[in-house]
Amino acid sequence: MNILQTLRIHDIFSFLNSILGLGAILAASNGEAEASAALVILAAIADGADGLVARRIGPGLLGEDLDSLADVISFGVAPAFLAVTNLDMGWNGWIFGGLYLICGSIRLARFNISQKNDKFFEGFPIPAAGILLVAIILFGVPNITIFAILSLSILMISTIHYPKIRDSKLSILLGVFLFVISYLLLTQYSNHRNVFSANIILLAVNLIYLSSPVVIRFLRTEK
Amino acid sequence: MNILQTLRIHDIFSFLNSILGLGAILAASNGEAEASAALVILAAIADGADGLVARRIGPGLLGEDLDSLADVISFGVAPAFLAVTNLDMGWNGWIFGGLYLICGSIRLARFNISQKNDKFFEGFPIPAAGILLVAIILFGVPNITIFAILSLSILMISTIHYPKIRDSKLSILLGVFLFVISYLLLTQYSNHRNVFSANIILLAVNLIYLSSPVVIRFLRTEK
Repeated sequence: MNILQTLRIHDIFSFLNSILGLGAILAASNGEAEASAALVILAAIADGADGLVARRIGPGLLGEDLDSLADVISFGVAPAFLAVTNLDMGWNGWIFGGLYLICGSIRLARFNISQKNDKFFEGFPIPAAGILLVAIILFGVPNITIFAILSLSILMISTIHYPKIRDSKLSILLGVFLFVISYLLLTQYSNHRNVFSANIILLAVNLIYLSSPVVIRFLRTEK
Repeated sequence: MNILQTLRIHDIFSFLNSILGLGAILAASNGEAEASAALVILAAIADGADGLVARRIGPGLLGEDLDSLADVISFGVAPAFLAVTNLDMGWNGWIFGGLYLICGSIRLARFNISQKNDKFFEGFPIPAAGILLVAIILFGVPNITIFAILSLSILMISTIHYPKIRDSKLSILLGVFLFVISYLLLTQYSNHRNVFSANIILLAVNLIYLSSPVVIRFLRTEK
């Protein structure tokens, strides 16, 4: 089977996602944490674009697998690597990074075998976990990073239902928001105040999503 | 669905494979190319053990996906990262690493959707490509590394049939051989002659496998 003929136009976003993930790891290894975080966020935009097009024209034969493989690189390996190099704990850091990576892989494998539901994800999605983790790493407080790794690992493999953002306009708005944040991280890395502000906003938006299942349950009980 | 209950005993080898892959990236970022190569080889042993047990007791619900996700880390990202950091070409290096990663991902995605055949793989398997690439990187000749990246990328997405090693005894023998090589790389990194010899043997064995389709075709024509 000539495999290249089975590729679809949106698979290019999966490839872009993978390459941005590799770039994030390379930036982190050069000590450029802000650039690494920005590349993880750009990878999430590519991932979103992939999903948006795939839902319109169909995923294609390889689409779902290519998407998972790219996700484990950009939102699994890259944040884990950035965490380990920033925790500076030697072998202990490796254990925390490994735990996050394993839980992220379980989350992706479960998604592939689970019956798709249009309304919610089961467990915290790995792109959101990756973005949240790199945002927290940028604050540079090791204990909070470890707490985030442990919490996100558990949330990813949990059965908590997280709402899917399926509205095209909202997806595009979110993409623009993420692009602005990554632009600020890439260009303003010498201006700590701007980077700090951008990071706080990113963290706030992500924490709203993280806590959304509680809010949804509360609203349902109120009715 | 409680996802942890669906895990099988051999999935632990997939997790080990992922963690060794993360370790290989960390070692490479510390400039320890021999240790990085050794960890990629150890990941291949974990991958082999995973396959050996999975064939006996069945892959389980998540087995195949977890296996692919681990493979893209250890034999995709890790060798690509080691190549880019050793090529020292800046952005150009990123392009070569990215190409290898994309072709490796296509190879893994195709394997997941293809009808399984007990006798052969379609395209050069990514664990073999990963080991061959790190062995070549250790020789430290950038042009040969680039040639290897281009060749392996094409071979992985090719339709060439590569024999599967299904014999348990041969698999275990190969595992022991790889373990000895990785042990030499990890412990003898200060002894360049020993590392060079280990690497030459690793390269020779891998090149025999690489050229096996030609030999098999030649033998068939002879009959």
